[in-house]
Amino acid sequence: MNLDFKTPLLDTVQTPSDLRNLPASSLRQLADELRAETIAAVGVTGGHLGSGLGVVELTTAIHYVFDTPADRLVWDVGHQCYPHKILTGRRDRIRTLRTGGGLSGFTKRSESEYDPFGAAHSSTSISAALGFAIANKIAGKPGKAIAVIGDGAMSAGMAYEAMNNAQGAGNRLVVILNDNDMSIAPPVGGLSAYLSRIVSSREFLGLRDLARRMARKLPRPLHQAARKTDEFARGMAMGGTLFEELGFYYVGPIDGHNLDQLIPVLENVRDAEEGPILVHVVTKKGKGYAPAEAAADKYHGVQKFDVITGVQSKAPPGPPHYQNVFGAQLVAEAASDPTICAITAAMPSGTGLDAFAKAYPERFFDVGIAEQHAVTFAAGLAAQGMRPFCAIYSTFLQRAYDQVVHDVAIQNLPVRFAIDRAGLVGADGATHAGSFDVTYLATLPNFVVMAAADEAELVHMVHTAALHDTGPIAVRYPRGNGTGVALPATPERLEIGKGRIVREGKKVAILSLGTRLAEALKAADALDARGLSTTVADLRFAKPLDEALIRKLLTTHEVAVTIEESSVGGLGAHVLTLASDTGLIDAGLKLRTMRLPDLFQDQDKPEKQYAEAGLDADAIVDTVLKALRHNSGSLVEEARA
Amino acid sequence: MNLDFKTPLLDTVQTPSDLRNLPASSLRQLADELRAETIAAVGVTGGHLGSGLGVVELTTAIHYVFDTPADRLVWDVGHQCYPHKILTGRRDRIRTLRTGGGLSGFTKRSESEYDPFGAAHSSTSISAALGFAIANKIAGKPGKAIAVIGDGAMSAGMAYEAMNNAQGAGNRLVVILNDNDMSIAPPVGGLSAYLSRIVSSREFLGLRDLARRMARKLPRPLHQAARKTDEFARGMAMGGTLFEELGFYYVGPIDGHNLDQLIPVLENVRDAEEGPILVHVVTKKGKGYAPAEAAADKYHGVQKFDVITGVQSKAPPGPPHYQNVFGAQLVAEAASDPTICAITAAMPSGTGLDAFAKAYPERFFDVGIAEQHAVTFAAGLAAQGMRPFCAIYSTFLQRAYDQVVHDVAIQNLPVRFAIDRAGLVGADGATHAGSFDVTYLATLPNFVVMAAADEAELVHMVHTAALHDTGPIAVRYPRGNGTGVALPATPERLEIGKGRIVREGKKVAILSLGTRLAEALKAADALDARGLSTTVADLRFAKPLDEALIRKLLTTHEVAVTIEESSVGGLGAHVLTLASDTGLIDAGLKLRTMRLPDLFQDQDKPEKQYAEAGLDADAIVDTVLKALRHNSGSLVEEARA
Repeated sequence: MNLDFKTPLLDTVQTPSDLRNLPASSLRQLADELRAETIAAVGVTGGHLGSGLGVVELTTAIHYVFDTPADRLVWDVGHQCYPHKILTGRRDRIRTLRTGGGLSGFTKRSESEYDPFGAAHSSTSISAALGFAIANKIAGKPGKAIAVIGDGAMSAGMAYEAMNNAQGAGNRLVVILNDNDMSIAPPVGGLSAYLSRIVSSREFLGLRDLARRMARKLPRPLHQAARKTDEFARGMAMGGTLFEELGFYYVGPIDGHNLDQLIPVLENVRDAEEGPILVHVVTKKGKGYAPAEAAADKYHGVQKFDVITGVQSKAPPGPPHYQNVFGAQLVAEAASDPTICAITAAMPSGTGLDAFAKAYPERFFDVGIAEQHAVTFAAGLAAQGMRPFCAIYSTFLQRAYDQVVHDVAIQNLPVRFAIDRAGLVGADGATHAGSFDVTYLATLPNFVVMAAADEAELVHMVHTAALHDTGPIAVRYPRGNGTGVALPATPERLEIGKGRIVREGKKVAILSLGTRLAEALKAADALDARGLSTTVADLRFAKPLDEALIRKLLTTHEVAVTIEESSVGGLGAHVLTLASDTGLIDAGLKLRTMRLPDLFQDQDKPEKQYAEAGLDADAIVDTVLKALRHNSGSLVEEARA
Repeated sequence: MNLDFKTPLLDTVQTPSDLRNLPASSLRQLADELRAETIAAVGVTGGHLGSGLGVVELTTAIHYVFDTPADRLVWDVGHQCYPHKILTGRRDRIRTLRTGGGLSGFTKRSESEYDPFGAAHSSTSISAALGFAIANKIAGKPGKAIAVIGDGAMSAGMAYEAMNNAQGAGNRLVVILNDNDMSIAPPVGGLSAYLSRIVSSREFLGLRDLARRMARKLPRPLHQAARKTDEFARGMAMGGTLFEELGFYYVGPIDGHNLDQLIPVLENVRDAEEGPILVHVVTKKGKGYAPAEAAADKYHGVQKFDVITGVQSKAPPGPPHYQNVFGAQLVAEAASDPTICAITAAMPSGTGLDAFAKAYPERFFDVGIAEQHAVTFAAGLAAQGMRPFCAIYSTFLQRAYDQVVHDVAIQNLPVRFAIDRAGLVGADGATHAGSFDVTYLATLPNFVVMAAADEAELVHMVHTAALHDTGPIAVRYPRGNGTGVALPATPERLEIGKGRIVREGKKVAILSLGTRLAEALKAADALDARGLSTTVADLRFAKPLDEALIRKLLTTHEVAVTIEESSVGGLGAHVLTLASDTGLIDAGLKLRTMRLPDLFQDQDKPEKQYAEAGLDADAIVDTVLKALRHNSGSLVEEARA
């Protein structure tokens, strides 16, 4: 890898129409320059590297063959879109990826007309592309829709639902299956094994064969006769039956790094009179960058790195990540309890369950990108006497909400939910923020909802959840490092629905849920310094609430503030509801609720996100001071007037 | 159909073990008696008829062959379980189906050990059964898990996710695909067409063939050699490839009403050493009852009916159903706006969209049981300039929550949600109640959330939604008949976030959202009669709130009560949050929130459910009186003490 690389061709391409003016013979060089530029940019910003490198040729070929942005290109997940961004007018900002005010690490509608549909969660692309295709069909407008979806994303139910509905789109819909034998983790399940069998059972099509077969597969009027033969119906479709049974024309497998194959195949697909068509393209994650090719999982998402050596900058040494504290504690629980088992939806390392997988492989289940199945599978395990922990990021648990309600909560089954990435998530931005789980879980009967204030609390809560056999229980905790507190030698079983006083004061009460506790304590110091003696409580439970503690805090302090890293309808709303139900508000209560703002926050450094959200120590102090100053009497007079 | 039918054999069967003591030759008679008893019972209770009649033989055969309840039988959806309930100790209560205190219309864990996993929503059975199978495997215990799932339910993504993960279960998992070419509506999509091709392309296996082939398909050690032949790999599996590609042994199709086929096949499946196995059984919905066979859709869910004639008792004449008011108004909108389109997930008639489908077939989309796809497909349509209405019951929209958040709300796309069956639903019970939508939607940035107080309001709200192009908007409305108000000649475009005063008073304010308005007005009359002059407001919007109106009502009345047919975290929580954010609570507010209780309510008559929930006029009066009497000062003193 040459650091002083030149990009003479790429420099001439501002938009895909510039690209389309190049001769096909120069595309190889363009792709090489695009790859070098991608590596260099991610070396500076960090981010998703391997998946983008895997689709450099595919990105080039799609924009060369199709009429983007009139043809609608939908990247599934969107983390492979950096080369796409470089080719679609965003090269000048590519080194701002994932930073505050910079480019998103995913596709985003507000960023470019070349991003017709944003993504970040997996497996939405076929449904969205079908929407574009059908809208054009209804309006009688030209224009195709192209979904590019990975083999891992194909394991999710919604991709299957979309394929099952694709027939109405005809040739307006093209699905490109980008088969790199990887999601974030190695692939699992029947579909993955099936795709491997297809790829291993045959050579890539040669160019001449390809042209001949394509002509038969994607018939124009001349080929109507051939199409009816058995050979058409079965012969050419080797390995393609699963997709064909769902109504697609299957083409492939194709070498996704060979532009001499990609371009004619995509041209043929573009011009086909029938469809929908699924093109099976085989790529290599990290292609063209030796360190990434050698360890695709380690280069899925990277820190800034040295382009020459591939060495990623190390995160400064610090407290352990919450995910690893969770994983270690679950291993400890499993040692003495053979019924403990663990489920992840394609995130064994992100959830910290890799340690569990190593220690107890027979009790570890990676179900692929399949959150719905994960939850109901866990419910089945629980109904048969196991103690399952379902470890899913807050934002992804949204995908299994009905299973949480219908299969777990209504049946009151003791499924344990380990909800990672709760709250704001920094560089990943709005799509990955875990903003809603307290609200959408605490509204459910039977649920216990905990939030860990630090990594020691997380240990206690995992232990508490393991022993909680009477119904569903969830513990939420954030992305990133713990606070550095000592981990307990022996985990404690917490009493369900009991909070704790962390700091005693007299005038102000801060009721904290989760890791904003540290900021609450800072705010308390600042308030104390102003003569406002402050109590800080860690409520631990959003549900059930510690009614006695809350009543006491509300009635013995002049002002009370709740704080949580979640959206409206969560802890604050439940505390207010309690105060209303019990009549505590009748006589006047200076009670304020601090929560995430009513907007989707873009990516930024965490501390900036917290400041924007109004959830740091300064904001707490402000809220308390304003509440104390607030002359509600006169305001009521005003409103009455 | 003989009304004075006798059931001498069935009378001897209290549990499946009695059944297993019968000679196989008497099962035909038993099935006939079971069918007669099922028809007679549903004639009395109403409920799901056709699907139960379709599985009379299957139910008999499964309990005869497998060792229930040790072997775990999971009925998908569960509405076909009446014959199962009759055979598993619940015959004496079968005429209490779907009534208060009676048997649930679905499988239910608390009802019987023969219901190891409850259901009501579709497509959960394979995931749950896999949980049972794997738990047994881990524990080294015997016991199989059998999932019975319809072809319609197979269109849902989670069934596919589960199949994709089934391989680990080996022969502990049996999936019985009950192919009756129907979900509630005629089936849609590629999978359905595929299953039809299988069934139409071959005869049912003859008994001798069957035995021979089964022996090869499900090898015991003796057959290891045969298994390796190409014939095994492809030949016997005619039409079974899709399931085989996902890792199943495919057996079928089998005539699901022929016990002479069912019993040996299931015995062979039970004893097979390899798996998982998928048995493809073809049945007829409504089998054995002429009126139901002739019109399967009309006998899916029935009123009480005359067993001889099949004539269902008519619902008393009354105001139109909300669903039909919605459907008619959407047809009216579509007449002048070619961008209006409508999406349902397998509920064309339940959502009232059948009228739309007839009027505008090219703009109508039934995507099958595929809520996730429905929502993201709608988002794609909206991104391409259409005005899609996604009509999904409140409880089923839970299945697409992540798509609502990630694809619609974050991108602020103007998808319109028509949320039917919001609130309590009577005989269908907890699994179908639409309790959580206000909470899980109003917490999302960008969303507009409306609730219709009556059918005239629904007309206005559908019109308002049609014209709302700046972001997502939802309107919720209940199951059943409207209130009987006149429908507006011309629909009105409501101002977003503005409520209305329905009745002016001075002392008490009732802030209502949705159809509890009628009870609020009754309560107001009762309060007036006690000298408590009462204002009633219909807030119309849970989000955005009408801040000016709410502030005015809270500050000019002595007591205020919110009421909504939804769970904690909804309207009441948002009003309290507003009162807290603005400091209105500082000086004292007698504000109470009335909402659904924190429990899952079983089936009952709607009025009884409302009374249990504390959401009728009496409860409102009580709440107001208690709040007025409440001496909060002394209570605070008490708490301080």
